[in-house]
Amino acid sequence: MTNPTACLVIIGNEVLSGRTREANLQYIATRLGQIGIPLMEARVIPDIRAAIIGTINEVRAKFDHVFTTGGIGPTHDDITSECIAAAFGVPWEPHPEAWALLERHYAENHPPGAFNAARQRMATMPRGAVLIENPVSVAPGFSIGNVHVLAGVPRIMQAMFEALAPRLKGGPPIASATVHADGLLEGRIAEGLADIQARWPMLDIGSYPYYRPGGGGVAIVAKGTDAERVAEAAQAITAFLRACGAKPKDGEPPA
Amino acid sequence: MTNPTACLVIIGNEVLSGRTREANLQYIATRLGQIGIPLMEARVIPDIRAAIIGTINEVRAKFDHVFTTGGIGPTHDDITSECIAAAFGVPWEPHPEAWALLERHYAENHPPGAFNAARQRMATMPRGAVLIENPVSVAPGFSIGNVHVLAGVPRIMQAMFEALAPRLKGGPPIASATVHADGLLEGRIAEGLADIQARWPMLDIGSYPYYRPGGGGVAIVAKGTDAERVAEAAQAITAFLRACGAKPKDGEPPA
Repeated sequence: MTNPTACLVIIGNEVLSGRTREANLQYIATRLGQIGIPLMEARVIPDIRAAIIGTINEVRAKFDHVFTTGGIGPTHDDITSECIAAAFGVPWEPHPEAWALLERHYAENHPPGAFNAARQRMATMPRGAVLIENPVSVAPGFSIGNVHVLAGVPRIMQAMFEALAPRLKGGPPIASATVHADGLLEGRIAEGLADIQARWPMLDIGSYPYYRPGGGGVAIVAKGTDAERVAEAAQAITAFLRACGAKPKDGEPPA
Repeated sequence: MTNPTACLVIIGNEVLSGRTREANLQYIATRLGQIGIPLMEARVIPDIRAAIIGTINEVRAKFDHVFTTGGIGPTHDDITSECIAAAFGVPWEPHPEAWALLERHYAENHPPGAFNAARQRMATMPRGAVLIENPVSVAPGFSIGNVHVLAGVPRIMQAMFEALAPRLKGGPPIASATVHADGLLEGRIAEGLADIQARWPMLDIGSYPYYRPGGGGVAIVAKGTDAERVAEAAQAITAFLRACGAKPKDGEPPA
């Protein structure tokens, strides 16, 4: 059984200018691995209509799932929703359920007239959109086809992702085992590691040097959907590192 | 005068699996803004040959500069350099200057035989590559055409970027001004902001809500290459927020 694949599209000038540190990729990557929909690519693109439409149409054809973050608020630079409609070639129109939700929210919690034109944009969606609940700040995300549109604010994005997660059908979860050894240099173990990768071609074996004030080392990660093979490879890595004279330990190096 | 554009390609399974938090995008985005080569897109892609070659050939045709991070170490999963050679259709071969550098380094600092086949891969480059100095750990990055190949470890990447920076010819630097106001909701100011964006179409006006334990607000950023227009727009934003009853302050909200 092969796993469905995912692509993340991060929409926002503020990430590309360096103003804002990207803070959603790691969460989504980790959760998708657990669900068994490995993230195969991520893109950061600007709040530019042609860039959003072009990117969405490219990646929704290429991957089983596309997740977007950012650009679904009420201001002029929030253009994700209307661009998704254009990408799918469907009208961008009031979504009855989202409209009712926001109309009630503003009536109950804000002065009269608060559900203004700007806020009505948050209830305007591509025709056929299925809402993704927002338990933090009401205004919902949505799915259309294989594209899932989430907020950019991490706390809201995470709540939306968890609301959506039960609807995502993944393959087997990605199992992973890590072994690290202090004082080791990658160049010394590279050939032996390549041999181990060759013995378990169905796994990804990654080698990651680390640097700590007290000295560095290398962490080796074995990853794949077959947990037994992952465990076998991790044993072989441990034995190999020991044969190199290192003292391998399970898990990531302490931070 | 228009600015040259840049794309960043982050190469590494460890970022896509969630194991490693991406830590180079913000540095590169900020520095490129200062140099006047705005970052227009970033992609995170896996250590897969076809993905690297395909992405590099797509983005080097689309942007003036391409920066890559990751995948230039000595292990089997470090395949960036050979993939760049394949993307450019040139041989991947020992680079005389890099080879001499590394041969000397290992002879002086390591036991005999340390400059092994794995480490020799770090001195093997696309024909025509121009070295980017690595003052941290010797093994150099390189430029070929408009593609600049940097390490993935942040400390090494930053040192390489600064070694390369004097060779990059940018346009006017991107000027930016930020105004923030506590207790403001985006939905209240959205229409007025859209009017300000319309008055300064040559600028990017971005609206970013923030959340703090003591309460939130909105930060408004005006950005563009004409510092005078940026200052004008920032004044207009301040006046508008004041008219909305808020108490705008210059700069980002305190963390």
